[in-house]
Amino acid sequence: MKENLKHQLAQTIRAYNAKGWSPATSTNYSFRETAESKDIVISRSGVDKAEFTSEDFMEVDFDGKPLSNYYHMKPSAETGIHCVLYELFPEATVVLHSHSVYPVLLSMTLPSVIFEGFEIQKGFDGVQTHESKVNIPIFENSQDMDDFKNWLREHVDQLKHHCFIIKGHGTYAWGKNLFEAKRHLETLDYLCELTWKRRK
Amino acid sequence: MKENLKHQLAQTIRAYNAKGWSPATSTNYSFRETAESKDIVISRSGVDKAEFTSEDFMEVDFDGKPLSNYYHMKPSAETGIHCVLYELFPEATVVLHSHSVYPVLLSMTLPSVIFEGFEIQKGFDGVQTHESKVNIPIFENSQDMDDFKNWLREHVDQLKHHCFIIKGHGTYAWGKNLFEAKRHLETLDYLCELTWKRRK
Amino acid sequence: MKENLKHQLAQTIRAYNAKGWSPATSTNYSFRETAESKDIVISRSGVDKAEFTSEDFMEVDFDGKPLSNYYHMKPSAETGIHCVLYELFPEATVVLHSHSVYPVLLSMTLPSVIFEGFEIQKGFDGVQTHESKVNIPIFENSQDMDDFKNWLREHVDQLKHHCFIIKGHGTYAWGKNLFEAKRHLETLDYLCELTWKRRK
Amino acid sequence: MKENLKHQLAQTIRAYNAKGWSPATSTNYSFRETAESKDIVISRSGVDKAEFTSEDFMEVDFDGKPLSNYYHMKPSAETGIHCVLYELFPEATVVLHSHSVYPVLLSMTLPSVIFEGFEIQKGFDGVQTHESKVNIPIFENSQDMDDFKNWLREHVDQLKHHCFIIKGHGTYAWGKNLFEAKRHLETLDYLCELTWKRRK
Repeated sequence: MKENLKHQLAQTIRAYNAKGWSPATSTNYSFRETAESKDIVISRSGVDKAEFTSEDFMEVDFDGKPLSNYYHMKPSAETGIHCVLYELFPEATVVLHSHSVYPVLLSMTLPSVIFEGFEIQKGFDGVQTHESKVNIPIFENSQDMDDFKNWLREHVDQLKHHCFIIKGHGTYAWGKNLFEAKRHLETLDYLCELTWKRRK
Repeated sequence: MKENLKHQLAQTIRAYNAKGWSPATSTNYSFRETAESKDIVISRSGVDKAEFTSEDFMEVDFDGKPLSNYYHMKPSAETGIHCVLYELFPEATVVLHSHSVYPVLLSMTLPSVIFEGFEIQKGFDGVQTHESKVNIPIFENSQDMDDFKNWLREHVDQLKHHCFIIKGHGTYAWGKNLFEAKRHLETLDYLCELTWKRRK
Repeated sequence: MKENLKHQLAQTIRAYNAKGWSPATSTNYSFRETAESKDIVISRSGVDKAEFTSEDFMEVDFDGKPLSNYYHMKPSAETGIHCVLYELFPEATVVLHSHSVYPVLLSMTLPSVIFEGFEIQKGFDGVQTHESKVNIPIFENSQDMDDFKNWLREHVDQLKHHCFIIKGHGTYAWGKNLFEAKRHLETLDYLCELTWKRRK
Repeated sequence: MKENLKHQLAQTIRAYNAKGWSPATSTNYSFRETAESKDIVISRSGVDKAEFTSEDFMEVDFDGKPLSNYYHMKPSAETGIHCVLYELFPEATVVLHSHSVYPVLLSMTLPSVIFEGFEIQKGFDGVQTHESKVNIPIFENSQDMDDFKNWLREHVDQLKHHCFIIKGHGTYAWGKNLFEAKRHLETLDYLCELTWKRRK
């Protein structure tokens, strides 16, 4: 089961790399075997995502500390974001991250992005119609992970659509399983591309 | 025969996904074995198009009701569009759908798209020269499938070029076979890309 | 030898299709075994370029008439352009055609494209420095192949860089072998992309 | 060891070609087995990068002269740039070159590119925060390799971030190993894409 999930997520990681979503070894990805599990399986840093395999994961607890088999490895600085998302959204079992260009471009000029009138908004779980107005927050980037985790805890009410954008950095999206997490990330990316191209 | 057609259409579905035409599990695709057949083979909803195989189809009748072997499955809400297109265009055996960005971008600002002066207009069956003027309608999006089916029946005279655009949603194209349906969809997409880039 | 050349050109055809250079079954490609040969091996029309194999060629003479083994096949209307290019450039053994979007976009607003200051101009055989000025003609599209062939014969002095653009249609490039013909076509496409993006 | 490095670099070369970074047989790539080695393994010119394999390298010394096994081959004119970079940065063992469009587009209008506020700036070795200001020089293109080598020696103080841009030509990036060199090249390319798209 865990091996199968590693295999599937590694395949997604390579596919997103081919789209240009993880240039220069950036981004990180994680999953939990079940919504009850306190063990987080997360991509190691320093691996080229074009060649990422199911061997390239490590495991951490909810504080981001490596589990025993992985005690000698240093997790990515952004591991903390994954941990706090599993804490805030207990039903989530997969967290994805992307550096695709359109959300980053929008993040440099807008305080948040609002989508309206697009069929694909229904890709966000809970959205029933293209006539709804979907508001995705853009948060300031920070090199202080504890600060950023607290920021997320304090602004959890803005996280209604299973994703957010970090200014000048990229996107995070999550879901009950890989299928849903991918749908949320791809929906956000696609809508950001449309929004950016319309503004030009 | 049917298995071969499933295999070919599944290959097209994966190829179009790689182009970014079906983000976030969106879009759906169908075929009939012959122009006489009342059985429609259509992609199941909830399958990631990056991994779509010939096992991921189901069958429905012209009312969109699952055939006996598939009675336990829920067809996509957009199945009705496929059904009404086979009803209106009896020679059609393949219907394709895409969320590629350029038709969607144009649909947000135009009432219809007009192509003139492009060689590839001849990709629409019946168009003989780049000097012709080709008008592709853009219809309002709707969450009420019965309304939308009636709209198509009432505006069938606008559907001269084997395709149309839904505002903020995407494109539909069809043909006598997969080869022709692909040619219509790709012609529309390419001309929308040129038109959008020229307007900028 | 001929089989090997068919295999290589088919591979190029599929690769260019993946770049979006032959949407909707458009474009055609040809070669001659040697610069002395009067037999032209050319892609058949009506084949999806995504799946083009070495079986999908036919052979014609310099008038575009099918050779005996192929008498039952109808060559593409644009076969005449390939024929006249081999006539005008006796050292050419490969002719490539593309519908990539940037040359087509430029062709709608310019009488010709001029490149200056780009290192890659040296990709055109005979160009020694980025400081040269390279002028590529844009010809009007025509549905009358005899007219177009005569136009090319009369304007051969403008064809100094092994390629040209047809307005609203696409590009043609040729070379002493496949390697050189590809270099000419890719150089033209790349410089058109730069030129279009700079103008925006 | 050397064979393994050839294999890995050849794989990178084909992957970058698929991104459109080496159109028309352009670009070249090199490595040294160790930071002590005076033998440079470099891609031969005249090979289509789409099909580049580990057989397509040759070896030269620090003056760019072919080593004995390769005495009959003519190295690329740009070999000198690789040589001088290994001379100036003794810890470098890999040098990469790209013609991707965004750095070239920026190079036509700017004297240098400055990045600020982007998380991915940390992809440049030594950069600790997105709040830093990263300045990448743009040098004039030259057909005189000795002149250009001297220019690099005289402006080595501007080469703080393991890469530079040549006007109208492309980018060079290097690193302690292939992993780091790729990270530097991809970081530069990604930031140039963001910068160009924001300016439009």
